[in-house]
Amino acid sequence: MTDWPKTYYACIFTNQRSEQGRDLYPMMSDRMVELAKTQPGFLGVESVRGDDEIGITVSYWETREAIAAWGRHGEHMIAKRHGREEFYLWFQLRIAKVEETRSFNIDQLDEAVSGD
Amino acid sequence: MTDWPKTYYACIFTNQRSEQGRDLYPMMSDRMVELAKTQPGFLGVESVRGDDEIGITVSYWETREAIAAWGRHGEHMIAKRHGREEFYLWFQLRIAKVEETRSFNIDQLDEAVSGD
Repeated sequence: MTDWPKTYYACIFTNQRSEQGRDLYPMMSDRMVELAKTQPGFLGVESVRGDDEIGITVSYWETREAIAAWGRHGEHMIAKRHGREEFYLWFQLRIAKVEETRSFNIDQLDEAVSGD
Repeated sequence: MTDWPKTYYACIFTNQRSEQGRDLYPMMSDRMVELAKTQPGFLGVESVRGDDEIGITVSYWETREAIAAWGRHGEHMIAKRHGREEFYLWFQLRIAKVEETRSFNIDQLDEAVSGD
């Protein structure tokens, strides 16, 4: 966290899983996180899913252009198509410019926050 | 969602619950959500907690000033103090300006998204 830029972008992805794809979804989700981490401009990701299958994943990027480029990545485009067709009942995606950060007892947020 | 402004602010609160306050925390958390909903400039809230006690709560506000005013609310200040002293192992709070929104199968996000 200490070397993050002063301002950066958050991609807030709120969603609810469907009953479909119980076998495929975890693999796809893990693969997307691993792939995102290798993209230019990637800063970090936080992801939580509750018992009701509602999830929030927030990924952080240096620029909006980095988010757009990730959106055009071939494997990501395939995953997004399956997301609409199978994995999600609904989702909401918001792109937001982070202007202020405060933390408490944070050393390594990326390591502390769970995968999906 | 349809009458939300074109740009607005997100308050992204990522945290991990401690072992303390298992009886008090749900009451405090519910009270904060109910109180936030009555504040000027409040738009909506999404909140998910996973099995590992990590949670992400994103609240949405018309302006940064509305977020700041909510931060100075008396009951909220008490809750924040107990949050640092008891309820949370760590947290990260980010304030971000939402610039772009995309959704899929969303009608009433506020009703669809669970409480904490």
